[in-house]
Amino acid sequence: MRIILDAMGSDRHPEPELHAAVEAARQFGDEIILVGKEEVLRPRLEALNPDGAPVRLVHAPEVLEMTDKPARSARAKARNSMAVGMELLKAGEGDAFVTAGNTGGAMANALFRLGRIRGVKRPALATRFPTRKGYCVVLDIGANAECKPEYLLQFAVMGSVYAEHLLGVPNPRVGLLSNGEEAGKGNDLVKATYPLLEASGLNFIGNVEGKELFGGEADVVVTDGFTGNVLLKGSEAVVRLLVDVLKEHLMASPRTKLGALLAKPAFEALKGLLDPEEIGAAPLLGINGLVFVGHGRSDARALLSAIRAARQGVENDLLTRLGTAIAARLTAAEE
Amino acid sequence: MRIILDAMGSDRHPEPELHAAVEAARQFGDEIILVGKEEVLRPRLEALNPDGAPVRLVHAPEVLEMTDKPARSARAKARNSMAVGMELLKAGEGDAFVTAGNTGGAMANALFRLGRIRGVKRPALATRFPTRKGYCVVLDIGANAECKPEYLLQFAVMGSVYAEHLLGVPNPRVGLLSNGEEAGKGNDLVKATYPLLEASGLNFIGNVEGKELFGGEADVVVTDGFTGNVLLKGSEAVVRLLVDVLKEHLMASPRTKLGALLAKPAFEALKGLLDPEEIGAAPLLGINGLVFVGHGRSDARALLSAIRAARQGVENDLLTRLGTAIAARLTAAEE
Repeated sequence: MRIILDAMGSDRHPEPELHAAVEAARQFGDEIILVGKEEVLRPRLEALNPDGAPVRLVHAPEVLEMTDKPARSARAKARNSMAVGMELLKAGEGDAFVTAGNTGGAMANALFRLGRIRGVKRPALATRFPTRKGYCVVLDIGANAECKPEYLLQFAVMGSVYAEHLLGVPNPRVGLLSNGEEAGKGNDLVKATYPLLEASGLNFIGNVEGKELFGGEADVVVTDGFTGNVLLKGSEAVVRLLVDVLKEHLMASPRTKLGALLAKPAFEALKGLLDPEEIGAAPLLGINGLVFVGHGRSDARALLSAIRAARQGVENDLLTRLGTAIAARLTAAEE
Repeated sequence: MRIILDAMGSDRHPEPELHAAVEAARQFGDEIILVGKEEVLRPRLEALNPDGAPVRLVHAPEVLEMTDKPARSARAKARNSMAVGMELLKAGEGDAFVTAGNTGGAMANALFRLGRIRGVKRPALATRFPTRKGYCVVLDIGANAECKPEYLLQFAVMGSVYAEHLLGVPNPRVGLLSNGEEAGKGNDLVKATYPLLEASGLNFIGNVEGKELFGGEADVVVTDGFTGNVLLKGSEAVVRLLVDVLKEHLMASPRTKLGALLAKPAFEALKGLLDPEEIGAAPLLGINGLVFVGHGRSDARALLSAIRAARQGVENDLLTRLGTAIAARLTAAEE
């Protein structure tokens, strides 16, 4: 397996990328193809990788900046590191592409270089939310701020493939994110999507709210990219607030400090639940190539975890399975 | 001051309402007007209130059920407890109305019985979110699943009045909830609302995400009722998940149990942050009368806190201030 890694993606690039590439090459024995400014990367890589783990450099002279308009610069900066990496993927020189760069940039480059899986209307960004019982795949979490009912139906199809083959959930339960559990609740988009999901043959369990999502009552939750993004970032932020306030109060007196020390195993147990870096990267489902987008704040550990997610996608043949699931529906619709 | 309380609102009505009414009458010395089925309420009230704190019963023969369609039943059940209570408010027999019943039902009844403040396009449900620095008023959290930019502009005006006069924040900072902080991010509604807020003369700080909201960087955050509701319920649910998992692990061994005991003051400090009952009730801003909607799961303590919120609204002349702020904008627009 060969994973292509954008060396210029994360906020602190390229250090985290260099470390993650060398570590992944060592751990998995896979070739990691690191894409970015060769003159910057070459000396650092040589210093980091004296034993010559299989990391190959591919030069990309341009970098997508956070201030770049994604759609415009995906074309204008034709040789940005994402573009070069995705061209390698398209040419079959790698099996998956991983970046911690701008999501909009990744989507624009992916649409331009790789295109969509045949029949897919809009690719979606999918991530796993921790729940009381494991994980729930939520999509779209930010690729499409405006959606149509047919997009959400396809998100449900693609999310189900993801949950079944990457999380190992047979016949995944699909929920529609809404402002009330009752059928009939929702904004116009939700109300128009409900009957499509009901008739889809998927394991649709109806509208869900935060309670059902975090309670583990759904395996896949579909929503538009605006709402999904607000929910994701809101959940992360409220958890961070809670943990920070708790920490502050735990450090406030010798008594609570001792308590915190004794209770440490309980706090450790929370870590997996809280740590976005455990999850590593979100796949762009619907793109004709395996593209995984990690958090801009990723460190080497998070990027390693992103590479792990990409490897899992390759191993489980995610791309083919998505194509098959979408094609089956196109055929059904034509009949 | 006289507060009118819907006796048939909460999930476990009327017990929490009866207890809250008697307790409020005792604590504040105000008359509480309790509206509901007299034959049910009378004997229980007499048993609870032997010293005759000022609680008056007003009979309402019908009850809005969760299964009722709000708009239809607000009319069909003309003598439901919310309708009767709001008619009392309109007639000047009370200063504010409090219910823990269905939000949709409260809104439908309020629109039908009390109408809107002159110039208000859509009333909004507002609540306070806890933040790193205090509270942030978020609206709409569920009254209007579909919104237009002009509604959000008015939400910002009304939310600013709320923050200034009920939370004591001079010149409140107004944020627009979006899927990215940068101007230009957002769905169509956000993009169209941004210039209106920029030109509004309000203290508009731009787009905000969960990080800014929970970080206390805005005093008012405006959004459509669908997104606001998803954010509110999602935040509540993820916090509940976190607390439950932590509790479970704290109880897992004698060592962690002891740690939890010692660290108790730190956990206590979190309570105010976590407890939706601390906040009590959300006002329906824009209705021509002070209407506060509490959580269906409210117990007596939560309802007491809801009554307290309503009293604060009366004391600070919230209704007049909202009317003045909206009227000033109407006049400005006409000039």
